[in-house]
Amino acid sequence: MSLADAIFRPRTVGLIGASADETKNTARPHRYMRMHGFEGTIVPVNPNRDEVLGEKAWPSLEAYGKPVDHAFIMVPARFVPAAIEDCAKAGVKVATIYSDGFAEAGEVGQARQQALVDLGKSLGVRIIGPNSMGMIATDIAALLTVNAVLEAGDLVRGRFGLVSQSGTILGTMISRGIPRGIGFSKLVSVGNECDLGVGELAGYLADDPSTDAILLFLETLRDADALAAAARRAFDLGKPVIAYKLGRSSVGEQVALSHTGAIAGTDKAIDAFFRHNGIVRVDNLETLFEAPALFVGRKPPEIRRATVMTTTGGGAATVVDRLGVLGVDLATPGASLKQRMDGYGIRVGESPLIDVTMAGANAEVYGAGLDELVAADNNGIVVAVVGSSGQFKPDIAVRPIVERARSPKPIVSFIAPQADRSLRLLSDAGVAAFRTPESCADAVRAFLDWRAPVVQDHESRNVDLPDLPVAGALTEIEARNLFAALGVPMAAAKLVGPDDDLPDLSYPVAAKVVARDIAHKSDVGGVRLGIRDAAQLREALAGIYRDVGDAMPGVSIDGILVSPMLSGVCEAILGYRLDPQVGPVVVLGAGGVMAEIYRDVAIRMAPVSESEAMEMIAEVRGLAPVLGFRGRKGDAGALVRAVSRFSELSLMTGPILREAEINPLLILEEDGGVAGLDAFASF
Amino acid sequence: MSLADAIFRPRTVGLIGASADETKNTARPHRYMRMHGFEGTIVPVNPNRDEVLGEKAWPSLEAYGKPVDHAFIMVPARFVPAAIEDCAKAGVKVATIYSDGFAEAGEVGQARQQALVDLGKSLGVRIIGPNSMGMIATDIAALLTVNAVLEAGDLVRGRFGLVSQSGTILGTMISRGIPRGIGFSKLVSVGNECDLGVGELAGYLADDPSTDAILLFLETLRDADALAAAARRAFDLGKPVIAYKLGRSSVGEQVALSHTGAIAGTDKAIDAFFRHNGIVRVDNLETLFEAPALFVGRKPPEIRRATVMTTTGGGAATVVDRLGVLGVDLATPGASLKQRMDGYGIRVGESPLIDVTMAGANAEVYGAGLDELVAADNNGIVVAVVGSSGQFKPDIAVRPIVERARSPKPIVSFIAPQADRSLRLLSDAGVAAFRTPESCADAVRAFLDWRAPVVQDHESRNVDLPDLPVAGALTEIEARNLFAALGVPMAAAKLVGPDDDLPDLSYPVAAKVVARDIAHKSDVGGVRLGIRDAAQLREALAGIYRDVGDAMPGVSIDGILVSPMLSGVCEAILGYRLDPQVGPVVVLGAGGVMAEIYRDVAIRMAPVSESEAMEMIAEVRGLAPVLGFRGRKGDAGALVRAVSRFSELSLMTGPILREAEINPLLILEEDGGVAGLDAFASF
Repeated sequence: MSLADAIFRPRTVGLIGASADETKNTARPHRYMRMHGFEGTIVPVNPNRDEVLGEKAWPSLEAYGKPVDHAFIMVPARFVPAAIEDCAKAGVKVATIYSDGFAEAGEVGQARQQALVDLGKSLGVRIIGPNSMGMIATDIAALLTVNAVLEAGDLVRGRFGLVSQSGTILGTMISRGIPRGIGFSKLVSVGNECDLGVGELAGYLADDPSTDAILLFLETLRDADALAAAARRAFDLGKPVIAYKLGRSSVGEQVALSHTGAIAGTDKAIDAFFRHNGIVRVDNLETLFEAPALFVGRKPPEIRRATVMTTTGGGAATVVDRLGVLGVDLATPGASLKQRMDGYGIRVGESPLIDVTMAGANAEVYGAGLDELVAADNNGIVVAVVGSSGQFKPDIAVRPIVERARSPKPIVSFIAPQADRSLRLLSDAGVAAFRTPESCADAVRAFLDWRAPVVQDHESRNVDLPDLPVAGALTEIEARNLFAALGVPMAAAKLVGPDDDLPDLSYPVAAKVVARDIAHKSDVGGVRLGIRDAAQLREALAGIYRDVGDAMPGVSIDGILVSPMLSGVCEAILGYRLDPQVGPVVVLGAGGVMAEIYRDVAIRMAPVSESEAMEMIAEVRGLAPVLGFRGRKGDAGALVRAVSRFSELSLMTGPILREAEINPLLILEEDGGVAGLDAFASF
Repeated sequence: MSLADAIFRPRTVGLIGASADETKNTARPHRYMRMHGFEGTIVPVNPNRDEVLGEKAWPSLEAYGKPVDHAFIMVPARFVPAAIEDCAKAGVKVATIYSDGFAEAGEVGQARQQALVDLGKSLGVRIIGPNSMGMIATDIAALLTVNAVLEAGDLVRGRFGLVSQSGTILGTMISRGIPRGIGFSKLVSVGNECDLGVGELAGYLADDPSTDAILLFLETLRDADALAAAARRAFDLGKPVIAYKLGRSSVGEQVALSHTGAIAGTDKAIDAFFRHNGIVRVDNLETLFEAPALFVGRKPPEIRRATVMTTTGGGAATVVDRLGVLGVDLATPGASLKQRMDGYGIRVGESPLIDVTMAGANAEVYGAGLDELVAADNNGIVVAVVGSSGQFKPDIAVRPIVERARSPKPIVSFIAPQADRSLRLLSDAGVAAFRTPESCADAVRAFLDWRAPVVQDHESRNVDLPDLPVAGALTEIEARNLFAALGVPMAAAKLVGPDDDLPDLSYPVAAKVVARDIAHKSDVGGVRLGIRDAAQLREALAGIYRDVGDAMPGVSIDGILVSPMLSGVCEAILGYRLDPQVGPVVVLGAGGVMAEIYRDVAIRMAPVSESEAMEMIAEVRGLAPVLGFRGRKGDAGALVRAVSRFSELSLMTGPILREAEINPLLILEEDGGVAGLDAFASF
């Protein structure tokens, strides 16, 4: 039996620490599997009992004498190592550990967890958890969990898989899905994720024949590479990966203000990671189980615009307003739709909210409207909003939508009143249906934002700069040379020594000291700006040598970099960093103090193509002048190329660069190009 | 009988156009009132029938011969005037008109509606609608509506009143409230609002003894003054007014970019209006009926910080994360709570999410935690998040919360799993309970943003500027003098005629033409910047006269305004306008193109106190340097005074100013003051 089968499709399960007292938590897995009809073999391990809930109990799995696929361990932390040893003897491939008292419990627990990891590795037993709420496979009723949600009489089966970093979310999702008829195939709580992580488990779900979509509830990201691989495989198989991830608001906290890397914030880097790998992110909790039907078996839309049709103006306006807040473009009704509705005596105006009124509240008219919208070439998704008929005549109200459940373009639905039966009919038909206007808009936005995984077929780049250091910070000259070698235009500049002639540059100019050991040039008097003529420059050069020498006696100075003071249409800040969770990212922001205040940046996984770079520019509001704003327009093409070339830092062979930045990067007028004014890089 | 009683507590109701065919919509009001037990008198008017649904039918209300309080009119539009005349004869105080074909139906309909308004006025019959879904008074089962939601067997009564500009929302709210045990006292659909509007109706609900909270579903604002008065009366009576208003996203569309007035956007002005009058705005649809219990009988909190306690980390983190996104500050756990929990063996750390774990999932421990948080002086609201016990042991799970429903500090609750019974127990106890983390966070944010209505006891200001025009635009000199007279510091400037001596100002200076008939000075060559010395100034003055004369031959020029070019810590834009919906507002934004791009403005109803002005400054992100950012700090006190003084434009006696602006308003270093550089005003 493969590891994936042992995890999600075990035939023999061991329950280590199974209680014979039905009221105990530790009796639950056994009880639940009996209640819901597990057809495999249950091996309760309880050294104090001969029998547990009518099943022969064993002192150990080893004593049972036959192979066990998956063990669920419920004994106190100090007995877990012995349980793992027992697992190894019984040929258990994977143990899910419910027991707590490990990494979540201070230093002692951390040491205990490390020992556990080592033990599992040495014995060949893979581990889910510890501190896991368990694994639930509804299709075969393998219920290795103490989650009370399974007390409910009926186990609602379904085709969505869930991997969760929070144990309680398993119950939250299952219970909220039940009245909607939305069920799950497999659910797994990863606990402390000491061995089997989100990425690896998601990968097994991608290959699971009873799973159509993979949902993730994430608090952090511990194995980005494995998750990326799983998401890409799932995408190829037509199985969407949809994530709800905590941490949207920690952006604020994590913002340290000195570099783009910090401005970026980890959460935005995670967005970049998700997008890069075709993972969909939703923002509302219930969207996580309401949205998947929209994605299953579909590809990202080519037309990133929604259209909304309704019989109830007020109800639909709540969705439209929220879509607007989320930045979703709405398609205007086309001539063909108008004409068709005219035939039914319904006048459709220019409003992007297509209201066919009560007169359209019947299967023929509503269906005809949907057909027109599905056929229209100006939208990528149709939102069908249903009014009071959804409550009282569910079969009639949702029939036109249900009949078109398999249309090539997705139709989703929001029902204004409480309408459980309608929601269920839609779910049963595979239509994504939403309880609230907010989750509906969230899903539509997520669908229109959905991208196929970015193709990764980059060749590594061997930058031929023999004198580059291999550790620590580069000098400004080295950083400039590196960026220029990649193809990023840097402003003209001359390095001037104490006895050199003055360079031939147009004034005004700036002068700044170049020295490997000086991290903050301004702090030591190493920068002069707005130098107007040769006399001032001479004075400035002497002044810098003097001030820097005073501030850092004996420091080695390479020279003074003199460069013209340019001004352009606007300034950008272009950064690169190795994100600890997701890897190399490139960050583009507007320049200046305002952009810093507004935290207005676009982030992508590096490297980025030119079309991705163009999307980044459009995403940064403060860079509006680059694309044209109030009569100003910059050289967008040059900026696109600069961003893409700069992002190739991630392809460099040799030692790995940790951080790099051009700040500011000046964008000149159309066809004027761009020019980096200040360069920084560090291994 | 008073008008309010006739509307919401009628004893005799007329149904004009009542059908005897039970399957018809127009039979519904009668049927519903019988079904749900209306104890008053129903007078069906149907000239073709002697009897309708077992009740004697009349050819007219007049024929009925006794007084009728409230009539519901369901006849086609062309018969409505006759119905109103009939109402007048029967002494009907108010007619609610369901019929459509009025202002919503093109020019013919608009004329028809105007005639209806005139008729009602002349006959003394007040009108709700037309195109109204009707009025529902659950307490006395007066159900003047065709809304199918009343087909449901039980009419869930409650103490929330709803005034809605969308008819279908009545059904949406009622139906969604039912499974939660959340009911309404009165609901009214205002339709086209031709006579009785949202404000007046809300006012009657404020005085309604069976209504504790007034909910508004708004698409627009037609009677701001009446609504303001109603909201203030309701506030004084301890009845919150809570609004869900469409239009959040139209901000984007409505942004025209030339003046602050336009930057402001109507939606932000409405926010200012709500805040000014103590109206709470919620952003999620279901928050509208979930939140009121939180506000009823309470005052705005003094400590604007929330605290969150839970037994389920993952579930509660969804609320905490969303609170963070909404900018809500969280209180950290205090020593007393930690100590108390220690006593139960529960270690509470420093995290703002207080997780008492499963060990705290019992009434004693959870209750003790709540007591500590209610007693703590660092929060204004307690969010109690309940885990799986909310689903399976509702009585036990929510008991500690229910027992503290009347605590002086509000406790609200989010329940992670599906837990209808728990939600209902909480609602029954008057605790605001939420189905989703998003609506929970929305309500908590709304509560912490809640303000008492701003006291309005301003004296009007008689600005003594005898030469001010009384219509059209002021010249820059006039505008400067006006602002200065109010106490707003304007930068030093001298008006120079063609033959005058050069003014004694420090260079560089700017020069701009002053002329009543020139709206856009730059367009006619009327502005010169960066003038470095007297020679350049002489040249600039001559150049302006020449260029302006060429561009507008014969235009009358008052002179050239010469002022020093100053720079400060940052620039603001300070605007004033008469908003068409809410009246005079003052707008503060950061200066420059970036602030325009980010639409970063704070808006308040004018005039504003100094403390309100301070809040505005804190609200504008781009003005962070004023309060201190990256080593820069401006004269916040001077800006506070300038904003407050400028806002007193609304108190001026005489002709009403429509629009005014100082752009830029320069903020100098601490104790350096502020200086208006450019002034504009228009009647």
